[in-house]
Amino acid sequence: MAGNSFGSVFRFTTWGESHGPAIGCVVDGTPPGIPLDETGIQRYLDRRRPGQSRFTTQRREPDTVRILSGVFEGLTTGTPIGMVIENTDQRSKDYSEIRDRFRPGHADYTYEAKYGIRDYRGGGRSSARETAMRVAAGSVARAVLAHRVGPGITIRGALVQVGPHAIDRSRWEWEEIDRNPFWCPDPVMAEQWSGFLDTVRKQGSSAGAVVEVVADGVPAGLGEPVYGKLDSDLAAAMMSINAVKGVEVGDGFGLAAADGREAADEMRMVDGRPVFLGNRAGGVLGGISTGQPLVARFAVKPTSSILEPRRSVDRHGREVTVSTTGRHDPCVGIRAVPVGEAMMACVLADHLLRHHAQCAPRADLSDR
Amino acid sequence: MAGNSFGSVFRFTTWGESHGPAIGCVVDGTPPGIPLDETGIQRYLDRRRPGQSRFTTQRREPDTVRILSGVFEGLTTGTPIGMVIENTDQRSKDYSEIRDRFRPGHADYTYEAKYGIRDYRGGGRSSARETAMRVAAGSVARAVLAHRVGPGITIRGALVQVGPHAIDRSRWEWEEIDRNPFWCPDPVMAEQWSGFLDTVRKQGSSAGAVVEVVADGVPAGLGEPVYGKLDSDLAAAMMSINAVKGVEVGDGFGLAAADGREAADEMRMVDGRPVFLGNRAGGVLGGISTGQPLVARFAVKPTSSILEPRRSVDRHGREVTVSTTGRHDPCVGIRAVPVGEAMMACVLADHLLRHHAQCAPRADLSDR
Amino acid sequence: MAGNSFGSVFRFTTWGESHGPAIGCVVDGTPPGIPLDETGIQRYLDRRRPGQSRFTTQRREPDTVRILSGVFEGLTTGTPIGMVIENTDQRSKDYSEIRDRFRPGHADYTYEAKYGIRDYRGGGRSSARETAMRVAAGSVARAVLAHRVGPGITIRGALVQVGPHAIDRSRWEWEEIDRNPFWCPDPVMAEQWSGFLDTVRKQGSSAGAVVEVVADGVPAGLGEPVYGKLDSDLAAAMMSINAVKGVEVGDGFGLAAADGREAADEMRMVDGRPVFLGNRAGGVLGGISTGQPLVARFAVKPTSSILEPRRSVDRHGREVTVSTTGRHDPCVGIRAVPVGEAMMACVLADHLLRHHAQCAPRADLSDR
Amino acid sequence: MAGNSFGSVFRFTTWGESHGPAIGCVVDGTPPGIPLDETGIQRYLDRRRPGQSRFTTQRREPDTVRILSGVFEGLTTGTPIGMVIENTDQRSKDYSEIRDRFRPGHADYTYEAKYGIRDYRGGGRSSARETAMRVAAGSVARAVLAHRVGPGITIRGALVQVGPHAIDRSRWEWEEIDRNPFWCPDPVMAEQWSGFLDTVRKQGSSAGAVVEVVADGVPAGLGEPVYGKLDSDLAAAMMSINAVKGVEVGDGFGLAAADGREAADEMRMVDGRPVFLGNRAGGVLGGISTGQPLVARFAVKPTSSILEPRRSVDRHGREVTVSTTGRHDPCVGIRAVPVGEAMMACVLADHLLRHHAQCAPRADLSDR
Repeated sequence: MAGNSFGSVFRFTTWGESHGPAIGCVVDGTPPGIPLDETGIQRYLDRRRPGQSRFTTQRREPDTVRILSGVFEGLTTGTPIGMVIENTDQRSKDYSEIRDRFRPGHADYTYEAKYGIRDYRGGGRSSARETAMRVAAGSVARAVLAHRVGPGITIRGALVQVGPHAIDRSRWEWEEIDRNPFWCPDPVMAEQWSGFLDTVRKQGSSAGAVVEVVADGVPAGLGEPVYGKLDSDLAAAMMSINAVKGVEVGDGFGLAAADGREAADEMRMVDGRPVFLGNRAGGVLGGISTGQPLVARFAVKPTSSILEPRRSVDRHGREVTVSTTGRHDPCVGIRAVPVGEAMMACVLADHLLRHHAQCAPRADLSDR
Repeated sequence: MAGNSFGSVFRFTTWGESHGPAIGCVVDGTPPGIPLDETGIQRYLDRRRPGQSRFTTQRREPDTVRILSGVFEGLTTGTPIGMVIENTDQRSKDYSEIRDRFRPGHADYTYEAKYGIRDYRGGGRSSARETAMRVAAGSVARAVLAHRVGPGITIRGALVQVGPHAIDRSRWEWEEIDRNPFWCPDPVMAEQWSGFLDTVRKQGSSAGAVVEVVADGVPAGLGEPVYGKLDSDLAAAMMSINAVKGVEVGDGFGLAAADGREAADEMRMVDGRPVFLGNRAGGVLGGISTGQPLVARFAVKPTSSILEPRRSVDRHGREVTVSTTGRHDPCVGIRAVPVGEAMMACVLADHLLRHHAQCAPRADLSDR
Repeated sequence: MAGNSFGSVFRFTTWGESHGPAIGCVVDGTPPGIPLDETGIQRYLDRRRPGQSRFTTQRREPDTVRILSGVFEGLTTGTPIGMVIENTDQRSKDYSEIRDRFRPGHADYTYEAKYGIRDYRGGGRSSARETAMRVAAGSVARAVLAHRVGPGITIRGALVQVGPHAIDRSRWEWEEIDRNPFWCPDPVMAEQWSGFLDTVRKQGSSAGAVVEVVADGVPAGLGEPVYGKLDSDLAAAMMSINAVKGVEVGDGFGLAAADGREAADEMRMVDGRPVFLGNRAGGVLGGISTGQPLVARFAVKPTSSILEPRRSVDRHGREVTVSTTGRHDPCVGIRAVPVGEAMMACVLADHLLRHHAQCAPRADLSDR
Repeated sequence: MAGNSFGSVFRFTTWGESHGPAIGCVVDGTPPGIPLDETGIQRYLDRRRPGQSRFTTQRREPDTVRILSGVFEGLTTGTPIGMVIENTDQRSKDYSEIRDRFRPGHADYTYEAKYGIRDYRGGGRSSARETAMRVAAGSVARAVLAHRVGPGITIRGALVQVGPHAIDRSRWEWEEIDRNPFWCPDPVMAEQWSGFLDTVRKQGSSAGAVVEVVADGVPAGLGEPVYGKLDSDLAAAMMSINAVKGVEVGDGFGLAAADGREAADEMRMVDGRPVFLGNRAGGVLGGISTGQPLVARFAVKPTSSILEPRRSVDRHGREVTVSTTGRHDPCVGIRAVPVGEAMMACVLADHLLRHHAQCAPRADLSDR
C-alpha cells in the first residue's frame, strides 16, 4: 500500500515538501455532523508552530490552515476533508551547499538511494514540516472522539526527558505544561532544561528527548488482535514521527527487568466495579484497551542539523564536512509533543470507528 | 481493515485458537518459482517449539506444519500459500477454574470487554500459540529475501537481557546463540541466566527480557515515507508480538540522552564507496534502510501466568485470586527470539517487493 | 495489496488449488456473538455442489466444510474464522495431456505468462473450485446481515438467460427456483432450457448465461462514495467470479438507450413515507443504497472446456488441438447462482459494518 | 477502508465538492524520475472540460491544475503528488430550490439517508466535477505506463452508442474521434447523434450512452487472481464513474448468448510466436491480461438533470416536482470518455507496479 496514508477506517493522507508551494492532507472516513472549523484546528497547529521560544527554530511559518472540502455550514459531511497550508517562509536561498551533500543523520542519503532523486530544499518530504498536517488530522480525530465518546476523553502530551535529564514524576502536574516552553509537567526540571539547552545551543550541538502521551477516558475494548493491536498501531504511529527511535507503552522497557509477581496489574472490585490496582500495562492488554489511561512514550534523537561540522560524503563520492548554519531546533523533541498527541488521537479515532463497525457499542463490563 | 493480516504486497493472515482443532495462516503475494517445502519451514518452527529446555513450557506440541496450497513440485506458484498446524496437545481438562476469571496481565478482561465472549481455553486467540504461524510465514519471507537479494541477507535474533541482567556486548559472539537454551550471544551471561531463572521458577514467578534482532545484508532504499517507514512497520511488527511493551531501533531510547555531536553516524569514502562510521541509527534514516545492519530491540514483559496467587475479579464481579499451575514459560522472551526474527523477515520481504514495485532495482549508490 | 482477499472491514481470504489437498478461507472482522455452525454453512455449500443434476459436472465433491477457529460454543467470537474443505475427488490421473497445453479460453496461458509456473492439475488456482469458499464466506456474511439488520434482509439469485434464451420476466416466481435444476424463476423457460442444454451437450459444446441477484430489505445508506461505492464493489465482486464478463445494476445497459424522462425513478409520499415509483436504478444512487431492492446481473461466458476440438499452442510453441473429455458443466452459469448470492452477501456485510463505523445507525428518513 | 482512494500500490485519493473552494487529489506510489508537468496533465483535463460544444454543459470551468508536491525540476520524486483545481465558476446563486428537495435519479436522497447532511450546492461531492481529478490522476498513470512499458502502450476511449443509436463497428476509425464533439469513431453515426441530441435537448430530456475504452500494448501477465483480477478492478473503476450502470469486458453480455464452440479465442503460432485468432475475451483470461488489446465498455444512464418536471419529495416529506433549469449536459456519456480512459490508465499502472513487485519482469512467452 502506498506509504503516505495512515489509518484504515479513519484515514488521512499527507502530501507536500518543506519548500514546495504548500503542504496538505486529506482526512477520509470522518463521521458526519461533527462541528469543525479552521479556528479549532488552528489552535492545535499553533501549539506546534515554530518560533515560539528561543528553544525552537526561528523560522516564521504562520501555518494557516484552510479547509477546502468535507465541511459544510460548520459541520462535517462525511466526505473527505481536504486541508492545505501554504509555505510562506520559503526563502529563496542558495541550496548549492546541500544539493549534493548527504547531511549526517538525515534522510538525504537514503532518499537518494531509494529514489535516485530528491527535493533537497530544506529536507523536502523528509522535513518535519510534514508533521503540521498530522496535527491538523489529529484535531479532526479529537473532534471525532469527543463526538463519539464524549468530553471525558482527553489526550495530553508532555516532555519527560531532555538529553540525560529526566523529570521527577512525583512532581508531575499537568497544568505546568502550559507554563514553560517545553510542555514539561515538572516545573523544577523545566528550569534545569532551560539552562541545559542554552548550553547545548552555544556548543553548536543538539539534544534528544523523551515524549510521553497520555489518553484518559479511553473506553475499554479498542484494538484489533493480532496485527491491528492498539499498541501495535500506536508504535507504528509514534515511530513514524521524524527522529523517533523508540516507543514504549506503560512501563515499557522497564517491564523487561521486572519480576512477574509485580509486573501484572491486579484487580479488585471498588464500588461494585472492577478496578485495576496499577497501570504498568499502560492501558493495553492483549492489544485491546483496558479502560485505564493509555500511556505511550517515545524517544526523539538529537537533531542532526547542528553547527558543529560533521564528516560526510556527497553524491559524487567526495568526502565533505557538513555544518548546519540555518534556523533549527536545538531539541526537536519539544515540538514533537503536539505531534505525538495528534498521532495518538488518530490511532484512537480509527480504532473507535473500527470497534463500532465490528462490535456494537456494548454496556461496559464495569456496569455489570 | 480487519486485524489479522500483516503486510501489504507480501501479506499473511493467521487464524486459530490455542485449544481449537488447528491454527493456520495464508501467505499471499509470494513471488513464483521459489523453492519451498515443509522441511525448510519446519526447521524454523522447531526453534520456537516449546519443551526444548527446562526454561520453556513443557507442553508437547510437535507443531508439524502442512503446506496445503501455493507450492507445486517444490516451487512457489505465486498463489496463496495455505499452511496449517494441528493442535495435538489439547488436553481435555477442566476449564471451570479460568472460565469466568480474568487472569491479571492477560487479555481475558479486554477480550471480554471488546467481544463479550471469549474462548477461554488456554488463552484462545490471545495465546502465544498464534506466533507459530508467524514463524511459518517468516520462513516464507526468508525464502523471498534469499531469492531476490541473495544469500548475503541474514536475519538473526538474540536475547540480550533477562530480568535485570543484560549481556556484556563486548562478548557478543553469534555462534554462541546455538550453544545455550537462551539464544544468548554472551556465554558468560547465559550461565548467569540459568541460575537466575531457576530461582525465578522456584519462587513461582517469571522474568521479562529484551530481544535483539539484526538483519545483515539489507539493501539500501527499503521503506516508504512517511507512514510506511521501514522502522514504523518494524515497530508495529514487534509490538504485535505477545507480551511486548517496547520497541527501539538502533540506539533507541539511548539516543534521547545523547549529544547531537555524537548521535549521527558520520560517513567517509572507503575503497571508493560511501561507508558509515557507526550505526547508532540502526540501519534506518528517514524511514529508509541505509544498507547497514538493521537493528531492532524489543522488551518482553514477564509472563503473568505464575504460581504465586494474584488478586483479580471474575465475570460476575466477584473478587478472586488466580494462580497458574499449568505448564508455562518462566521467561516468554526466550521463545520470542525466533518470532522476532520472523516478523523482521516479513517486514523486509514486504518492503523489498514494495520497493521493486515503485522503484526499479537501481545500481547501488556505493557503486558510483 | 495481495490479491486473494475481498472486503475491508468484513474481509475474507481464500487459498487452495483444485487438485491440492484442500481449499480454505479465513473470514476476518465478523461481529461476535452470532450463531454459526457447520450445518448452516453446509446448506449453502450443498446448493453449489456439483453432480446434482445432469446439467452440472458429475464430479463427486462432498465439499464438507470444517470450521477450525473463530466459533466457540456455537457463537462467533470476533476472531478470524478459519474454514477448510478437503479435496476428496482428486483422481490420480495422467495430466500429461494438459500439462504443457494452453486450453483456449482458460487461464492456462495467462498464469504461465504471469508466473512462469502453474499447477496445471484441474486448473489449479483458476478453477471454479475456489468459489466453494466464497459460498462459505457468504454464509457467514448472511449471518452478519441477519444479526445486524434482522430477518427482513434476503439475498436470492436466479438464472435469467441461458444461451440466447431469456426468461419472460412477467412469469417470475421466486418459488420456482427450487423446482428446477437451473434456479430459473420462469417455469416455462426452465423446460425450454432443459432441452436446449441437452442439445448443447450432445454437440460437445457449452452455453453462456446471465445470473440475476436481488437483495431485499437492504437499509438505505450503504456505500462509500466515490471509490467504495456499493455498486462499484458489487461490480468487482461479480466480475471476480470465474467466467464472468459483464455486470450491470438495475436496468444497466438498458439505461444507455433510455430517454432521460423515463430513466430516473420518481418519488411520492405513501402513507407518510417516501416511496420510489420504480427501480430502474437497481437500488443504488450515487453509489449508496436507496432502500429499494438491490439488483445486480452478470454475464457468464460458455465454459471453454468442451469436447469439440479447439486450436491452441503449447508451452514449447507447438500448435495443438485441445478437446476436453473430462467431467464439466455444460453451463457454468447454473452453479454461479449461489456464488453470486454469496458475493453480494459479502459486499453488503462489509458495507453495513463500514456504515456503522462512520455513521451511527440513524433513524430512517422514511420515519420522519 | 475509507472510500475516496483508488488503487493499492499506485493509489490516488480525491477530495472536494462541486461548489467548494477547490477540488484536488493526491497520487501516491508514483515511480521516481518520470517527466511530469502541469502542461501535460492540462492537456487531458482540457479534453474533459465542459463548454466545448453545444452538447456539453455551458459552465465555464477553466479547470487549471496546479501541482503542489511530488515533482521537482520536472521529474517525479516518488513522494506524493498533490494537485489542486480551484473552483472558479461557483456562481453565488439561490440554492433554496434544491436545498431540501431530492432530485430524482440523483444522490440527494441517498446522501441524506447515509449522512443526514449534505452540501447541496451543485451536487456537492456527488457531482461529476470530481471526475476532473480522475483525469489528472490518469495522466500521471499514463506517464507511469509510458515510463515502464514504453510508448507502445496507448489508451483510447470512444463513444459507441448514444441513446438507442449504436455505431457501425465496421466504420471504426480512431482518427475520427477528434473530428466530432462525441469522440465517435464512426463519422456517419456522429452526424446522426448530432441531430438526435438536438432533439433530445429541445424536448428538455437527456440521453444515455455507451463508452468503450481500449488499451493497446498491454503486456501479458497483469492482474492478481482471484480478487484483484484485472477485469475485477476495471469493473470497479468504471462502475465508480458517475451515472455508470453497467460494465463489460470483451464481448461481455454478448458472450452469455454465445455457443461454447465460438466463445473462446483460439491460438496459433505466427512467425514463431503464439497469436490469438480473436479477442472475444477482451484481453483478459482468468483475471490476467493476455497481451491482446484490453477492451472495456460501460453504460452511462441519461442525466437526471432535465428540464421536464419530475415528481419527487423533499426532506420534510412533502411531494414536489423538480425541473432542472441550469446548465447541464444532455448526454453525460460524452464527457465520460476521457474519464473512462483515465480510470483504465490508473488500473493498469497499479497492476503493472503490483506485477513488478511480485514477479520480476519476465521474458515474454512469445519470445520463446
